[in-house]
Amino acid sequence: MRGPVRIVGTGLLGTSIGLGLAARGVEVQLADASPTAMRLAADYGAGRPAEPGDAPELIVVAVPPDVTAQVVARELEAFPDAVVADVASVKAVPLAELRALGADISRYLGTHPMAGRERSGALAGSGDLFVGRPWVIAGHDGISYERGSLVDDLILDLGAVPIESTPEEHDRAVAIVSHLPQLVSSLMAARLADAPDEALRLAGGGVRDVTRVAASDPALWIQILGANAPAVVEQLRALQTDLATLVDALDDVDASGSRKAVADALRAGNEGVARLPGKHGTHARFTRVQVRVDDRPGQLARLLADIGDAEVNLEDVRIDHAEGAQFGVAEITVLPEAVQRLHDALEELGWQVVA
Amino acid sequence: MRGPVRIVGTGLLGTSIGLGLAARGVEVQLADASPTAMRLAADYGAGRPAEPGDAPELIVVAVPPDVTAQVVARELEAFPDAVVADVASVKAVPLAELRALGADISRYLGTHPMAGRERSGALAGSGDLFVGRPWVIAGHDGISYERGSLVDDLILDLGAVPIESTPEEHDRAVAIVSHLPQLVSSLMAARLADAPDEALRLAGGGVRDVTRVAASDPALWIQILGANAPAVVEQLRALQTDLATLVDALDDVDASGSRKAVADALRAGNEGVARLPGKHGTHARFTRVQVRVDDRPGQLARLLADIGDAEVNLEDVRIDHAEGAQFGVAEITVLPEAVQRLHDALEELGWQVVA
Repeated sequence: MRGPVRIVGTGLLGTSIGLGLAARGVEVQLADASPTAMRLAADYGAGRPAEPGDAPELIVVAVPPDVTAQVVARELEAFPDAVVADVASVKAVPLAELRALGADISRYLGTHPMAGRERSGALAGSGDLFVGRPWVIAGHDGISYERGSLVDDLILDLGAVPIESTPEEHDRAVAIVSHLPQLVSSLMAARLADAPDEALRLAGGGVRDVTRVAASDPALWIQILGANAPAVVEQLRALQTDLATLVDALDDVDASGSRKAVADALRAGNEGVARLPGKHGTHARFTRVQVRVDDRPGQLARLLADIGDAEVNLEDVRIDHAEGAQFGVAEITVLPEAVQRLHDALEELGWQVVA
Repeated sequence: MRGPVRIVGTGLLGTSIGLGLAARGVEVQLADASPTAMRLAADYGAGRPAEPGDAPELIVVAVPPDVTAQVVARELEAFPDAVVADVASVKAVPLAELRALGADISRYLGTHPMAGRERSGALAGSGDLFVGRPWVIAGHDGISYERGSLVDDLILDLGAVPIESTPEEHDRAVAIVSHLPQLVSSLMAARLADAPDEALRLAGGGVRDVTRVAASDPALWIQILGANAPAVVEQLRALQTDLATLVDALDDVDASGSRKAVADALRAGNEGVARLPGKHGTHARFTRVQVRVDDRPGQLARLLADIGDAEVNLEDVRIDHAEGAQFGVAEITVLPEAVQRLHDALEELGWQVVA
């Protein structure tokens, strides 16, 4: 059975961790530099206020990146029997800072849950925030397996998927999949800042998707980007090169090779987005099968029951139907090896497989 | 009462227009260069095949941008009593081409519905694709008010919001809110194309949002961008300037003024995204409910059967689960008035509604 967990910092992540653990019956002790913020998280159900004499087994530091190392060092000293983990979005700088501070890193493990929202603070917290999400453990060789396993258990208890990495590998990875998208989104959104009102009225789903994360908190992001600047600059420079090629091509679009250069940029984008795992069936590992379904309650359930009977496991399913259309289309995402079996089983049962 | 409408081109937009009009009892005549595509749209409920002797009152040309002017000119000639509208994503070039062809533009009006999907074709079509969406009318002074009002009626019948503009103003506006987001998304996604697998495993909602439209069809986009290159280049150059400032700042992040420059870029993004009208990408008519589902065959079918038993009609369903996770999250899209009933029914049956 898990011992008490102390959470330092009751923003979105700290509160969400507290809510998830408390729901599983774990004793959660909450601390925050702001007593008001701590009280709010406690009232919200994320745990009880920390008290003198508390003896946590595990401490989770969930404070902004630029004070993470300092708070971790303080906690390591105050609780000499506890393992301390942090959840900051960068991993190499905090570890280096802890080493420079001479902290006992044999009890420290850096982690990073890949979950968040545009909103922040305790009231945006949710015990389910981490469910099914990757959670990086940025290991180092100064901590024992036994101590590290306390952190594994935390991650598993919260329904997340532990991913073993190193601080350097993690920071390079998030430069590509998190920090660059943030900056690209902010740069795009900045173009909207002085666009004419008439243009903004025409905004559709595309520009909304691209600019959604541009609503993120600048104060937090300046810390994240500051602590991972070299890896981020490397990505931005690659983007600059591609952008310059595109501008040259569009600037003289009728010149020989120009249209091909633009098409190449668009195709490279197709390739990149297809590599994203999981959701929406775009991953190369999966194949999509489209089946016609009548537009009335129960039809999709019947289809999925038939798929279950065929012992095919769905990776994703989407239904598309149309006001006024006579039928809809269910798009079933499965592993490629299951496609033929699924196809045969469905046709035998009278379903119309359209693609 | 509205006279017959002829639709030329039965891709996503043509089929969706046909479905929407047919549902309102309008006689819809379908034509497409591909008889198979036309037949599919007709089977789908978008109208009936066009026949010799048809006398449409209004013709909607929904073909790729680079053949739009040519098809509009042909339709104007073949149907001397009809008003012809197109729905291409660029407006100045087609009008100029029609003028050069000597077409009777007193019966032509260019329009552009701001609605679309990453997917294309009749089977992605939906009669409610345009509901609540802006639909630009790129007016010119060669067409009478009476003739133009036929096009207004079409737009209103499909539930869209008519927006009066000019071809030039439209093209500048879509350069900012549509063409630039497309290119930014493609450039970002291209960075994923040669990223390490380890990085892609960490991809979260942010990078998915930013890169979603990067899945769009390069063949279509090269036509759009080619016909609006000067306005797009102007936007790309402004982006280049901002990007260069950001790279300089992050390249020497501890220099005086560097952090402020990064914060300024992020704040400009905040300002821009705040200017987008309405809700963030969610269709105002629908609400999403998230339910935990175990990752084994038949679970989703059981969930959907339970939803069917509760007599709730699904608008959409998506499932999200991480590699290695024991369960996933099904996102159920329903009409807002069904949410409470769905929530209660599912909880009573033991489902865990997570949001």
